[in-house]
Amino acid sequence: MKTLINPIKSEWKTELARPVQKTKDIEKIVKPIIRKVKRQGDKALKKFALEYDHVNIKNLLASREEIAAAKLLVADELKQAIIQAKENIEKFHEAQQTPDLIMDTMDGVTCMRKSVAIQKVGLYIPGGTAPLFSTVLMLGIPANLAGCEEIVLCTPPNKEGNIHPAILFTADLIGIDRIVKVGGAQAVAAMTYGTETVPAVDKIFGPGNQYVTAAKQLAVKKGVAIDMPAGPSEVLVYADESAIPSFVASDLLSQAEHGIDSQVILVATSEKVAQKVMKEVDLQVEQLSRREIAKKALDNSVAVVMPNQDKAIDLINEYAPEHLIICVKEEDEDEVVGRIINAGSVFIGNFTPESAGDYASGTNHTLPTYGYARNYSGVSLDSFTKKITYQKISAKGIQNLGPTIEIMAENELLEAHKNAVTIRLNYLKENS
Amino acid sequence: MKTLINPIKSEWKTELARPVQKTKDIEKIVKPIIRKVKRQGDKALKKFALEYDHVNIKNLLASREEIAAAKLLVADELKQAIIQAKENIEKFHEAQQTPDLIMDTMDGVTCMRKSVAIQKVGLYIPGGTAPLFSTVLMLGIPANLAGCEEIVLCTPPNKEGNIHPAILFTADLIGIDRIVKVGGAQAVAAMTYGTETVPAVDKIFGPGNQYVTAAKQLAVKKGVAIDMPAGPSEVLVYADESAIPSFVASDLLSQAEHGIDSQVILVATSEKVAQKVMKEVDLQVEQLSRREIAKKALDNSVAVVMPNQDKAIDLINEYAPEHLIICVKEEDEDEVVGRIINAGSVFIGNFTPESAGDYASGTNHTLPTYGYARNYSGVSLDSFTKKITYQKISAKGIQNLGPTIEIMAENELLEAHKNAVTIRLNYLKENS
Repeated sequence: MKTLINPIKSEWKTELARPVQKTKDIEKIVKPIIRKVKRQGDKALKKFALEYDHVNIKNLLASREEIAAAKLLVADELKQAIIQAKENIEKFHEAQQTPDLIMDTMDGVTCMRKSVAIQKVGLYIPGGTAPLFSTVLMLGIPANLAGCEEIVLCTPPNKEGNIHPAILFTADLIGIDRIVKVGGAQAVAAMTYGTETVPAVDKIFGPGNQYVTAAKQLAVKKGVAIDMPAGPSEVLVYADESAIPSFVASDLLSQAEHGIDSQVILVATSEKVAQKVMKEVDLQVEQLSRREIAKKALDNSVAVVMPNQDKAIDLINEYAPEHLIICVKEEDEDEVVGRIINAGSVFIGNFTPESAGDYASGTNHTLPTYGYARNYSGVSLDSFTKKITYQKISAKGIQNLGPTIEIMAENELLEAHKNAVTIRLNYLKENS
Repeated sequence: MKTLINPIKSEWKTELARPVQKTKDIEKIVKPIIRKVKRQGDKALKKFALEYDHVNIKNLLASREEIAAAKLLVADELKQAIIQAKENIEKFHEAQQTPDLIMDTMDGVTCMRKSVAIQKVGLYIPGGTAPLFSTVLMLGIPANLAGCEEIVLCTPPNKEGNIHPAILFTADLIGIDRIVKVGGAQAVAAMTYGTETVPAVDKIFGPGNQYVTAAKQLAVKKGVAIDMPAGPSEVLVYADESAIPSFVASDLLSQAEHGIDSQVILVATSEKVAQKVMKEVDLQVEQLSRREIAKKALDNSVAVVMPNQDKAIDLINEYAPEHLIICVKEEDEDEVVGRIINAGSVFIGNFTPESAGDYASGTNHTLPTYGYARNYSGVSLDSFTKKITYQKISAKGIQNLGPTIEIMAENELLEAHKNAVTIRLNYLKENS
């Protein structure tokens, strides 16, 4: 982790550059996979399971029996933790409901807006070393609350052809009934085109490796929406002398352990603060089982000392971190938080670790990385709905508004647009 | 316009297929334009103005003098109409504000969500035969209401190097102060990379031809967000015997005049209704100055007779029209409207022409076409903001929630995530 003292603004971009992502070569690998799934459906999924997951899958769909068995395998304390997290996430996402909007913009002109669930959604949950049941909660809960008609969850099987019990337990807990044993680009392809087992969906959610990411980008070209562009995870901690260095270090490391392409940034108000944190990072990293990964991530990482709050906030907004932890004196807190305009999710104070939001506080952990916090929101209830507008105009209303429309349409040279009003106004004249 | 009587569901997709869009060849033309703008900035924009707009532009930025002069050139009745439309659009979009959300999901665990404006947005307004000042309203008003810091509007100049007075008047009316004379893919490239005159923006909005569309898609790859995927405009009218055939015909034609790749669909409850409407279409189309365009669009278009309301609604949701006009008996209205789950904007009743929403009722006219109404919303206030979540956990809060996080993190094999909590819990134990 290198240290920068008050870098000038023109250097921020280079100095805090995120690890580069390449997608072009990946597309070459992913495209034939997608084509095969499109053509051969389930047959292709089974073939790829053999090839990539090293397992011969007879039934791609997780059965009721498998789900029942999984429940017995999950430790009670984990079940309780998942149920507690579910409660918090549900509370916070339920409160995100957008009430219907209805108003008369003019006498006789009623405009409305309503949130309507996206019908079919697909949730991708990566496999690999760890079972990401927390992501099942983060995607499945809002999908359910939104009222999506069909929710399919795809996740790769292990070598025995099973899905991790904690994932099955969680998916079942929140009422997802179509759980399919398929991973990688082939899962995304299946949700894009549909197979015998996997329905084609309208929107695909969830993290994944570079193959999954590339497949999601290709799905967009086929008319499927995706949650957001992907990038490696990142955290920025803004700390003054009131921050407890060991806490800050633990937060930086909890991001660094994600992967070697993760980035962690410390913005400190003084060199002293930075040094104390770095010392703690060096101590704590050695204790981690994933220390090799974390150390590599730290190589991409920077501690920046900024001379004042204005400059620090400016740098934070320019970086637009996925996760932003703000540990400043309480009297400064509101001002600093209020001036943040680019961040995915903000964690305030010494007792708010990022992992609270990653798992269980209630906020969503699917957040815009890689600078996308400038222009994208994290996953929320909205992500599973679209907003439809409505209008109803009365005879009186079209008489009020009609002339305005006629003049505007005429000036945009759209005669038929004008006619649609004129014909109604004439009818009302003739029939009054 | 061909007529289909009760087509079976498996045929809907083919029978109602939208005109195909090709993007690949277009990209080959657009990419070098983008590269030049990236490298040469304003110089390239001026070069392309000469090449494509046939004008030698000295100052790309519209001057205060030009804007003042434009005001004198716009007829008073058009000014009044634009001001009326602005009022209605403002009312409806202002009502779309999302209130801040703040709640305790557990004792000591406070979660919040806030809408924050996207800092820099770019609005593209096409040139061509007609001055689309209505689109200036539809994009500029919510951008302003959201509080975007920088709003740049790009639109191509005419051969005299001027922007249409109605566009300048409208842009000035809503307070857009950076109006740049640049059109086409080069305008999108300028907003993507920034030039001396055009700032790089976080999100690009607005319609455009296939070059603009291709450039917007490429902008996405560079981290810029866009309003939505583009496609030709379309309307679907659902009419029973209560619909007034001449009104329905006028609505179909107001869509058909947009372009030869527009599609209009009539879903009628009986052959008789369909025949009456088609007869009116044939009569009215001959009166239009844009009849050649409208007739070609009608070639892509279909009248479908459905045997009952269930099937009709099913077909409508499957088609997912950008604009949906519902002209059914008043007693059926609520039920039909309530069952629509895929549509951009819905127009209800005989006195609600699509052109009301296109111009002045208050709803936005930038809507998902080409079936994207399944998974995208139209432009709204939300489109100009992102939602940031926040959390603040007290010492008590982390004691309440901490064990849940620890268990979950441990089971996802993310030790550092767990440590970030453990270190805080231990600190509280030691310091209590």
